[in-house]
Amino acid sequence: MNHLTGLYGLPASTLHDLLDLAAGYREGLNREPEIFDPVLANRRVALVFFENSTRTRFSFELAARHLGASTLSFTAASSSISKGETLSDTIRNLEAMKVDAFVLRHPSSGAADFVASITDRPVVNAGDGTHEHPTQALLDILTLREYFGRIEGLKIMILGDILHSRVARSNIIGLKTLGAEIAVCAPTTLLPGRIDQLGVQVFTGIDEALAWADAAIVLRLQLERATGGFIPSLEEYSARYGLTDEKLDRLKRLLPVLHPGPINREIEISNLVADRIQPPGYSSSMLMEQVTNGVAVRMAVLHRLLAR
Amino acid sequence: MNHLTGLYGLPASTLHDLLDLAAGYREGLNREPEIFDPVLANRRVALVFFENSTRTRFSFELAARHLGASTLSFTAASSSISKGETLSDTIRNLEAMKVDAFVLRHPSSGAADFVASITDRPVVNAGDGTHEHPTQALLDILTLREYFGRIEGLKIMILGDILHSRVARSNIIGLKTLGAEIAVCAPTTLLPGRIDQLGVQVFTGIDEALAWADAAIVLRLQLERATGGFIPSLEEYSARYGLTDEKLDRLKRLLPVLHPGPINREIEISNLVADRIQPPGYSSSMLMEQVTNGVAVRMAVLHRLLAR
Amino acid sequence: MNHLTGLYGLPASTLHDLLDLAAGYREGLNREPEIFDPVLANRRVALVFFENSTRTRFSFELAARHLGASTLSFTAASSSISKGETLSDTIRNLEAMKVDAFVLRHPSSGAADFVASITDRPVVNAGDGTHEHPTQALLDILTLREYFGRIEGLKIMILGDILHSRVARSNIIGLKTLGAEIAVCAPTTLLPGRIDQLGVQVFTGIDEALAWADAAIVLRLQLERATGGFIPSLEEYSARYGLTDEKLDRLKRLLPVLHPGPINREIEISNLVADRIQPPGYSSSMLMEQVTNGVAVRMAVLHRLLAR
Repeated sequence: MNHLTGLYGLPASTLHDLLDLAAGYREGLNREPEIFDPVLANRRVALVFFENSTRTRFSFELAARHLGASTLSFTAASSSISKGETLSDTIRNLEAMKVDAFVLRHPSSGAADFVASITDRPVVNAGDGTHEHPTQALLDILTLREYFGRIEGLKIMILGDILHSRVARSNIIGLKTLGAEIAVCAPTTLLPGRIDQLGVQVFTGIDEALAWADAAIVLRLQLERATGGFIPSLEEYSARYGLTDEKLDRLKRLLPVLHPGPINREIEISNLVADRIQPPGYSSSMLMEQVTNGVAVRMAVLHRLLAR
Repeated sequence: MNHLTGLYGLPASTLHDLLDLAAGYREGLNREPEIFDPVLANRRVALVFFENSTRTRFSFELAARHLGASTLSFTAASSSISKGETLSDTIRNLEAMKVDAFVLRHPSSGAADFVASITDRPVVNAGDGTHEHPTQALLDILTLREYFGRIEGLKIMILGDILHSRVARSNIIGLKTLGAEIAVCAPTTLLPGRIDQLGVQVFTGIDEALAWADAAIVLRLQLERATGGFIPSLEEYSARYGLTDEKLDRLKRLLPVLHPGPINREIEISNLVADRIQPPGYSSSMLMEQVTNGVAVRMAVLHRLLAR
Repeated sequence: MNHLTGLYGLPASTLHDLLDLAAGYREGLNREPEIFDPVLANRRVALVFFENSTRTRFSFELAARHLGASTLSFTAASSSISKGETLSDTIRNLEAMKVDAFVLRHPSSGAADFVASITDRPVVNAGDGTHEHPTQALLDILTLREYFGRIEGLKIMILGDILHSRVARSNIIGLKTLGAEIAVCAPTTLLPGRIDQLGVQVFTGIDEALAWADAAIVLRLQLERATGGFIPSLEEYSARYGLTDEKLDRLKRLLPVLHPGPINREIEISNLVADRIQPPGYSSSMLMEQVTNGVAVRMAVLHRLLAR
């Protein structure tokens, strides 16, 4: 593995190796103080973000620094991009400055693979358009693996805007590679046209989807979808697809719930479901576990790509 | 002390302890090179700024790094805030990423106490609305204590926009706790309604206020006050309340002058008064002393909240 | 040398000393890992940028960190500048916080010299208006010196918007100090009025200029020049002055080509010329060499100004 631009094509053994390494780092993060072997000392990681994402950038920054690396931030707003420089020129310039790795977020699908094709420095995709967001999927998978002790045979239901979601895409690929069954649940306007080719079950009703699932990954609803004609209104989306105690009560079974964040409270997920981590009630929020696992997963990825 | 969200309620002993520690750090800052015991090695301080403030952020960054800590910056412009995330979700996410402390600036009064109520990581208030700005007051107090050798019994006059000033509020609380007498001087439109309950003297004429005072803290005038109906015009405010040599000449006594910065030259303070650090003339500008003391005070606060 | 605000007035010996030191650092940058003697340990470099420039800021950040220094970023967008603070107050505040050096980029010509006049900390000019950009010229000169083995006697042609270019100005000064001959080539509307006093040859036709030159430095064309009345249109500028294979083919001689970046592809430089680093074809692109040399040159400058 020279780059991590997506989970597509990665064998189960590679995913398990990353998850195992991440699980060890996760334990370290629970200690105080969290001190790790500086396997990336004297390495410089460029965080090249063409979309805002404090959360993801922060997580990578912490991960890199835990391992002794130095981070340098490059954001579109303050960059030469506004001067019309091409992506490849930006990357080649940073490479000529001898940074050791790129963490890239970009609005265009395929941007990470493109960058990987023009540099011999490791590239980590931190989200590219509607393509992939592999470290998000890895942290979701680590969270599920820690909860259930395994991934194989699990039934994972992904709820919400599948059509535009790089998170859904990476999760479907990674979870299937590891032997999980996947279902998606969304209004048909938020499903890809070739959804039947993805090898996933499709539910348009949430009750059937919840009844099927061992765990649910709730996706963020981009609020502009309401004005884009994809859903009739936020209220109707929320009433039909928002994950609430009312719907979980009908299930009468504890369901672990994941969400990549940031959440729209009371739209795709209710406050109770987002915040409750143990019974009473039928949901177990994994959201904060996911965030901590995010740092651990990014440490594992940077370690594997960069350590000598 | 688990947090520093304000000076309200802190006993004199706590303030003196912080000031003593800061005074030692201040001495260290005068040495070249400035090298300090890295008591915060392997600690990560999140600088969460929802308002612009290069000066304060810089000062905290330097303070944290002098003690060996790593700093991570989070600013509203590039954050999930624009995606509508709640403050508590932002904080809980950063906490789950295992940052060790929060330095928070926020436009809402009470934001720092709110954040302190939802996290067990130390919170330092770097200014919240019109509530408090405790490290600014501590650096002002340290500056006065270094100049006079004591705080008890001093007569400190605060000049300007008391109504909107978290700096004034924190200074009044801290200085009174340490035994100083306080007066405020401002047009009545820039005084709080319950000013008589604060236990401070009130002057609306600057000559009487200056005659009373051992030292003056001049507040920044937000220029938009002129259009907000609080003052008739900048020119009239400046003529009546701007601190100038003309007014100080009538005093015929050397007066140390503080200002939290950034200053509006020739509005609330004249160039001569802002820049003159020794006679001839009747003012002694403490402004640069304050800035250096700011780093020292923030080192002391981070040390007390974070060191093991 | 206490500051580096420009190359004007610096003797050849100083330039050679910086270039020699930079050449050594350049060798180090080609090693893996790049580890350098931390001569700037415990030093803090403030990067004070009033204009956007990711490239230059990044380069200085890497340079400072290679030598063990800590960097702090200050950008106009998030600064007190929007609150109307003067440049001198900003600098004096940062100085009182005990930063060890300033790297300044500012839209006003002369800003770096002004800052140097009010602080005793070293100031490095990272570009001020249309005045100077000394580290850019030093990296261009290092690139030429590495290519040709010398500067003395070389014929260097600078192509493009001479009138507005601090890069051209610094290069003319530095290259002439080291004994090169300089020519400029541009439409007369993009030449300074007193060009004949600069001691450079002037070509308005590119073929004659190329025939004369040992190497060409192509300047970026600010695209707004087309609407500013300086050139008839981008297309006409590109047709007459854009450096293309068609024009180089008429030369029938290998020409090293430099450009400070970011480039406008197919406007002032063609894709082929920008990207080709060896024959066939009559250009040798130095662009990536320049970028790496930029880090080395900034290491040398920071070393000379800051190391004890």
